[in-house]
Amino acid sequence: MTTARSRLTPEREVELFDAVLALLREVGYSALTMDAVAARTRSSKATLYRQWGSKPQLVATALQRCPPHGDIDIDTGSLRGDFHALLSHSDDAQMKQDSELIRGLFQAVHEDRDLYEALQERFIGPEISRLTEVVDRAVARGEVRSDNPARELAAHMLLGAFFTREIIDDQFPDREFLTRYIDSVVLPALEA
Amino acid sequence: MTTARSRLTPEREVELFDAVLALLREVGYSALTMDAVAARTRSSKATLYRQWGSKPQLVATALQRCPPHGDIDIDTGSLRGDFHALLSHSDDAQMKQDSELIRGLFQAVHEDRDLYEALQERFIGPEISRLTEVVDRAVARGEVRSDNPARELAAHMLLGAFFTREIIDDQFPDREFLTRYIDSVVLPALEA
Repeated sequence: MTTARSRLTPEREVELFDAVLALLREVGYSALTMDAVAARTRSSKATLYRQWGSKPQLVATALQRCPPHGDIDIDTGSLRGDFHALLSHSDDAQMKQDSELIRGLFQAVHEDRDLYEALQERFIGPEISRLTEVVDRAVARGEVRSDNPARELAAHMLLGAFFTREIIDDQFPDREFLTRYIDSVVLPALEA
Repeated sequence: MTTARSRLTPEREVELFDAVLALLREVGYSALTMDAVAARTRSSKATLYRQWGSKPQLVATALQRCPPHGDIDIDTGSLRGDFHALLSHSDDAQMKQDSELIRGLFQAVHEDRDLYEALQERFIGPEISRLTEVVDRAVARGEVRSDNPARELAAHMLLGAFFTREIIDDQFPDREFLTRYIDSVVLPALEA
């Protein structure tokens, strides 16, 4: 397996994974075919199967390899400042891409454990860690009560706003909307 | 078209739509095939196409025809009471079914306008109306400020909790979780 993989250059791998994620955003997991990946990347299907074994393995690997949003080192001194700073690190185009990606995986992660874990590891987990850090610091500063039950629900609030924007309002989540949601929902709940 | 449709009894139609929605929950929209619907309902694919024209039309019709959750007439006299009463009208099995249904449609509603509208009309719209009624009464009672910006976000909060439960925590939303979310997030934001 290692020998087979080593035939692709790292640059070629990145190109291939980018194409997989782009297709995932465009058509969703279920409609993504190895034929389409092969066509878009000008590889043969045989190569794809030899290198990654199967569609779920290829997509899970592409998810794991896609560059993280960046370690954001934020400490503005207030909960509101930290949340706004978090948002300012991702632009509207990035949010649209993430929204499309998660939409494309929503059904699939339920059906394939590797995909679920890749999504957790790559998107959900890091998001939870960042929120936990920000909220823990606010607890330490006395801005949030340590026993506030909303602490455990920070990710549900924020990702919830992210996931529902398209289905309720027929538009992608963007910074304007998430800022409004943070100010109107997340902060009042955490500071209650 | 009317003549063709009239060949199915109403009971048979209900049976058929139930099977379509059950398949949708099981495999999601993209993997749902007319073959599978035909097999499960013991109809011919020709009949399905003659009656409904296409898979999106059949699924959209099945959504529109599925019995509403019931007009809930709730007025407990408090915002908290009303939210808890709303929850008590749907049991955990129903929530699991709704969660599966929406998961199965998440990508498809983006791609097909009829499906998007059927989901809006049948699930999202009624949910928003119920929440708006409950919150408007709380405003009239003085429990919620009329200019509270969280008023417009009630559906994002609640449906957000509903949609994220599975992807964050790997379990279906249930009454215990939503009660906790309402008490910790929705009420503090609306009563801020």
